[in-house]
Amino acid sequence: MTIDEAPARRSAITGLARRLRTALGPDAVIDDHQRLRTYECDGLAHYKVTPALVVLPADATGVVTTVRACAEAGVPFVARGSGTGLSGGALPHADGVLIVTSRLRRIVEIDPANQRAVVEPGVINLDITRAAGADGYYYAPDPSSQQICSIGGNLAENSGGAHCLKYGFTTNHVTGAEFVAPDGEVVRLGGKAPDATGYDLLGAIVGSEGTLGVVTEVTVRLVRLPEAVRTLLAGFPGTDDAGAATSAVIGAGVVPAAMEMMDALAIEAAEAAVRCGYPAGAGAVLIVELDGPAAEVDAQFAEVERHCRAHGAFEIRIAADDAERASFWRGRKSAFAAVGRISPDYIVQDGVIPRTVLAEVLHRIAELSRDTGIRVANVFHAGDGNLHPLVLFDDSVPGEAERAEEVSGAILDLCIEHGGSITGEHGVGSDKAKFMPRMFTEADLDTMQLLRCAFDPDGLANPGKVFPTPRLCGEVPGRHKGAHPLQDAGIAEVF
Amino acid sequence: MTIDEAPARRSAITGLARRLRTALGPDAVIDDHQRLRTYECDGLAHYKVTPALVVLPADATGVVTTVRACAEAGVPFVARGSGTGLSGGALPHADGVLIVTSRLRRIVEIDPANQRAVVEPGVINLDITRAAGADGYYYAPDPSSQQICSIGGNLAENSGGAHCLKYGFTTNHVTGAEFVAPDGEVVRLGGKAPDATGYDLLGAIVGSEGTLGVVTEVTVRLVRLPEAVRTLLAGFPGTDDAGAATSAVIGAGVVPAAMEMMDALAIEAAEAAVRCGYPAGAGAVLIVELDGPAAEVDAQFAEVERHCRAHGAFEIRIAADDAERASFWRGRKSAFAAVGRISPDYIVQDGVIPRTVLAEVLHRIAELSRDTGIRVANVFHAGDGNLHPLVLFDDSVPGEAERAEEVSGAILDLCIEHGGSITGEHGVGSDKAKFMPRMFTEADLDTMQLLRCAFDPDGLANPGKVFPTPRLCGEVPGRHKGAHPLQDAGIAEVF
Repeated sequence: MTIDEAPARRSAITGLARRLRTALGPDAVIDDHQRLRTYECDGLAHYKVTPALVVLPADATGVVTTVRACAEAGVPFVARGSGTGLSGGALPHADGVLIVTSRLRRIVEIDPANQRAVVEPGVINLDITRAAGADGYYYAPDPSSQQICSIGGNLAENSGGAHCLKYGFTTNHVTGAEFVAPDGEVVRLGGKAPDATGYDLLGAIVGSEGTLGVVTEVTVRLVRLPEAVRTLLAGFPGTDDAGAATSAVIGAGVVPAAMEMMDALAIEAAEAAVRCGYPAGAGAVLIVELDGPAAEVDAQFAEVERHCRAHGAFEIRIAADDAERASFWRGRKSAFAAVGRISPDYIVQDGVIPRTVLAEVLHRIAELSRDTGIRVANVFHAGDGNLHPLVLFDDSVPGEAERAEEVSGAILDLCIEHGGSITGEHGVGSDKAKFMPRMFTEADLDTMQLLRCAFDPDGLANPGKVFPTPRLCGEVPGRHKGAHPLQDAGIAEVF
Repeated sequence: MTIDEAPARRSAITGLARRLRTALGPDAVIDDHQRLRTYECDGLAHYKVTPALVVLPADATGVVTTVRACAEAGVPFVARGSGTGLSGGALPHADGVLIVTSRLRRIVEIDPANQRAVVEPGVINLDITRAAGADGYYYAPDPSSQQICSIGGNLAENSGGAHCLKYGFTTNHVTGAEFVAPDGEVVRLGGKAPDATGYDLLGAIVGSEGTLGVVTEVTVRLVRLPEAVRTLLAGFPGTDDAGAATSAVIGAGVVPAAMEMMDALAIEAAEAAVRCGYPAGAGAVLIVELDGPAAEVDAQFAEVERHCRAHGAFEIRIAADDAERASFWRGRKSAFAAVGRISPDYIVQDGVIPRTVLAEVLHRIAELSRDTGIRVANVFHAGDGNLHPLVLFDDSVPGEAERAEEVSGAILDLCIEHGGSITGEHGVGSDKAKFMPRMFTEADLDTMQLLRCAFDPDGLANPGKVFPTPRLCGEVPGRHKGAHPLQDAGIAEVF
């Protein structure tokens, strides 16, 4: 932003605040600087931007009113659910409006006969499961943050979770949405049917990280609660063995509900934090959960156990009851936070590789770690090759943060090099836009831009996210000034 | 087309023919009128248009050359696989090029470790299964035409099949594609990973019926061959009972691989054609197939049998071996053709309703039939509410074809009225474009058009399909003349 533009932008925001306060009520609009700072980041806490205005609409109409007002004023907007995202997808825009959906928490309908729930975007992921439980159903995708993350945020980021190995990602569970395009037009996409007629725009909206518009209602699939759940914890000498066991299980045609791996450093952190009591001396553990009809689970369980033993598991425990099952998961679920016990700072990375190169990539990560002196703990969804390396560092040691960020980036390069992807379930957001050209050609990115510009020619919906460089959409010459939007938005990077 | 434009169009085609013959070889280009007529329709045989030119590229480069040449000449193009589609999606354009993919039949890679196959678009659906079988895998979506239909056509129409109840449609099995946009640019969408980074453009391409471009390579998921398959044939007094049994089975959380229903008239036709020996006196039969681990199949089988008995099944047969299993399926698979034994002409309809209103909608169809004197046989995917009413008529009786078409349209209205859709798996194509406004609002259709125009501003990719009225994409004023493109293309409707 140049100095000359600042007064015009401020005046646009002042006008918007007045207009939206009248339309939505005084409580729905925040423009006090101290209160605005509450919203300066999402789960990717090292990027911080204070928004110009925060709006908390009480219903879908309020969202439409806000988007229309932004469109008319030419002011950018960013949608935010619970703010738990790990890629900075909900990072505010310094000259824009942050539309917070946390008041849109109505469960519109639980329809067990058609196995669907219709909810507002601010509804918490786990609350859908709670509402459907009485009828014997649940909502399958389970990000680690499922107790606090919103379904709208899940849709925007196409969130995954431990049980997505068997059940699929958010995109496999959203069958319909009411959607507000950046010009304020309201569109219905899909519905309760498994697959809609016409272009699958719903599929393109899921995972678009708020760059195409805002959803105001979501229809999701409900899954029948399984008859039986069995959970196994296996200790291995190292990640090679655990990786080979993973490949063997999947190769045998067994698809566990979840198949999670932790390496020695991650186990150490978890033990320090929650005393999970994993097999002593394990270089890696696997948590394998099977669910389904009891007869199926029993048959598959024997097969999983056999493959674990054949690939060097020296201790296998089977959860006798829900309490023991929870104790297996406690170490895994606490792992991200637990590394705080063994390192003052860390980066949560998210990359994907084919299962078949698991051992090789883990070796290369270990080499990187040795060469740089930066420790890396690995906790991840082994079954679908979705790595979550935790890159540990101490920000008080000069230069260590930069080295950690280099290691983190080099891990993504390893993923790409091995035929994988720069994100499995956390999204591109603010954090990984710069990595997109390593994975996609110019023609690929231009083609994505076709969709962006079709929906959002003025670049108002979550600008600066996903794409590495701002591109002009033909019709709006001079709209973007060519500066990197993150710089333009005045981001304070901690690193 | 006005008289004045005809010479210009003819000259454009002549130039294209010359250019493509030089580039692709003489055998790859057909412009002889008699030979062109071979391609005048697809599986929807009552719409016929002779294309101006047919091109049969030998490889992906040939497809790119053809699309680029069309773009430069401003000539429309239509892609065609095996021509088995039932909605006229591959109906040629009278002034356009038909790009036939039948020479692109290379299976590039079978990758069992990652459970993927990479194939050219002309590869026959069943040939993927044949190629993967040695490794214990198969390709799950199984249209009735799977012995002859191509994977490119399956992708374009997002084809279904009897076993898509459990395994999902084509869109759930395509993870990557190489795609030629209407301007000739080649883009890679997705890959072998379960879910790609960036916008899900691949999802939008699947089911876009050739209106966004042409695929030249497809990566599909391979599914492990099941350990056990069990098939049950149940005779019911009528469709109400069979429908209630269907709802009960699904409601109990059992998802059979397939769950198919035939009514009395469909059974009569099948008996006349293939003597399938279904239970005598049945007003409806259900074929239920379970697959998976043997232990699971056995447990679920008992449950299915129980629900069938509870809802009035008077005879239940269990296939003792593959031969008996094939005999159960013979009646179902022959049903479409079999109605030729009991009626000189028929329309195959394709609509979707929530399972929960199955009985009601079948009653309403029966009423329609009674009121109009037009017989309707029902053969369908009961498990996912995908109806295939066969509307019978005699074209030699004046007015009967029109009445049949009215009944067929009224059935779609019933589907929409009950919260369903105008197509489950056959696509919109030429046949159902006129029904789109009954299902979608103006804003919904405009939003789909955003995508169309982003990819194909000149309207060259399969024009006249899917959308009810041609719309101008801002930048190309006067391109379409405002006439309905089907009329414009000189369609001869049999009805």
